[in-house]
Amino acid sequence: MRLVTGDDITAAEKRLDGRVVRTPLLDAPVLGEALGLRVAVKAENLQHTGSFKARGATNALLARAEREGMPAGLVAFSAGNHAIAVAFVGRTFGLPTVVCMPPGAVPAKVAEVRRLGAEPVFTDDLLATARSLAAERGWHLLPPFDDPDVIAGQATVGRELLADGPVPAVVLVPVGGGGLISGIAAAVKEASPATRVVGVEPDGANAMSHALRTGTPTPPVRPVSVADGLAAPFAGRHTLAHVRALVDEVVEVPEAAILPAWSDLIHATKLLVEPAAAVSLAALRAGLVELPSGGRAVLVLSGGNVDPSRLATLR
Amino acid sequence: MRLVTGDDITAAEKRLDGRVVRTPLLDAPVLGEALGLRVAVKAENLQHTGSFKARGATNALLARAEREGMPAGLVAFSAGNHAIAVAFVGRTFGLPTVVCMPPGAVPAKVAEVRRLGAEPVFTDDLLATARSLAAERGWHLLPPFDDPDVIAGQATVGRELLADGPVPAVVLVPVGGGGLISGIAAAVKEASPATRVVGVEPDGANAMSHALRTGTPTPPVRPVSVADGLAAPFAGRHTLAHVRALVDEVVEVPEAAILPAWSDLIHATKLLVEPAAAVSLAALRAGLVELPSGGRAVLVLSGGNVDPSRLATLR
Repeated sequence: MRLVTGDDITAAEKRLDGRVVRTPLLDAPVLGEALGLRVAVKAENLQHTGSFKARGATNALLARAEREGMPAGLVAFSAGNHAIAVAFVGRTFGLPTVVCMPPGAVPAKVAEVRRLGAEPVFTDDLLATARSLAAERGWHLLPPFDDPDVIAGQATVGRELLADGPVPAVVLVPVGGGGLISGIAAAVKEASPATRVVGVEPDGANAMSHALRTGTPTPPVRPVSVADGLAAPFAGRHTLAHVRALVDEVVEVPEAAILPAWSDLIHATKLLVEPAAAVSLAALRAGLVELPSGGRAVLVLSGGNVDPSRLATLR
Repeated sequence: MRLVTGDDITAAEKRLDGRVVRTPLLDAPVLGEALGLRVAVKAENLQHTGSFKARGATNALLARAEREGMPAGLVAFSAGNHAIAVAFVGRTFGLPTVVCMPPGAVPAKVAEVRRLGAEPVFTDDLLATARSLAAERGWHLLPPFDDPDVIAGQATVGRELLADGPVPAVVLVPVGGGGLISGIAAAVKEASPATRVVGVEPDGANAMSHALRTGTPTPPVRPVSVADGLAAPFAGRHTLAHVRALVDEVVEVPEAAILPAWSDLIHATKLLVEPAAAVSLAALRAGLVELPSGGRAVLVLSGGNVDPSRLATLR
């Protein structure tokens, strides 16, 4: 399988220029002191739509427009951040947009999709409904993660974190379907092969680890995690290939370690992040990640869209 | 009374270089859309110690060291952000530090003072105890707000927000004792006299408004506010003089408007801020601030040290 190249990433950077936020890379001395190492965070919670997903969705649409012209409308399927990102992209380019969401989707996320002008369609079979809507209407289905253009868009996170600080010894990235880590690994390994790129999954939602161990993309039990943003039902083919080729390791953190790390991460950084963004801190605390001494760690904070019911549990 | 000058602020910038965070000025499109104007936030919640107070305390110590040498130790009195800032400054310069705090101080803030190596002393009479400790030990009392060096330190917020974005039509600043707005007004009015500088107080803690109306710095009723960071018992002499000379207006927001604005501010910006930082949004929503059409507003988010008990009320 063809991996995303430096040229793909450079093309994505050009497409995204002025359309996404160059999120700050922030030193996190309080975190670093607690962990005994230098830590910075890449604050993708401050991205448009509250997560990195705006990057991949924007790049995928613009790349498709270059190849085949702008589509007449957009279709997506997602319970969460990708739904919001596609609604945002649809509004940006004036395209009618429909987002297939599960009937149990968090009301705040449905409301945000609506606020951005997209139409939510509730269905238990997200993928089939999205495909049939796209076929019926002749609209373009924007994939959530398993797509080279999406991966190249997410890779711009990696380019920025290298450009905006000293070369890190290790970059830690939350893993759901694997689009973010695939892109970041492509960007980081091209420029700094010695930097370790480590993926972190909740042990309740470990499709990528399962795929790496067994070669089967779909785990036997449907993933469920307090880090809801990471509960991808399967690892992608493209993302699995990128992780195999470019990622140093993927570790699994116990579910019970995630919410305590989440509260502490918010207090230490003063950033509102979602539980998914806290799995890297949980992994560091649990001693799951090998740390080069004296090195600097960058934690990619993937998003900040917290369910209000979850917020009430913040300590 | 002599006001802080551009030279004072430039000297403060040099002292603070590398010692405080140049906090990001972040566009806030979600806020701006809701308000119908362009909005950016100056994220002082991301400052060392979680509030702007680190600036003034650092500048005041270093200015005093230039005049009279480094003191043998530091004394401060504060229930909140200034306590943490002085503990931080004491640790930075290796000075023993004692902080007088009220017996009812929030445990998390007391714990942070201790974590930074300072000694909390609990007393109902903060000022008298601090003065007598400073006299007994020969240590230096770092004032919380009513001091030209503290004001010049806070002024660096104003220099940065002008340097890092387009000239704003209006800058909104939460007002407690008035140190932050005094400094920001000095910096902003020097460079951009047409930019309106507006202070915002809770109507439950309105020492500055009371002083502007009556000339008396101490209000008849002891201030109490859900924006606890703003409950200064009196307006300073220096700060009142700065506000009179340089600030366009100080508005008072109803207490009931603060916490709803606080929740929405956190969700819209993905920044953990304290209720004090939300009074400006509350004032804009309540229509209390005259807005030049087409202009850009900068909201100074003063800090992010939220009491855990308050966090549980976040919606």
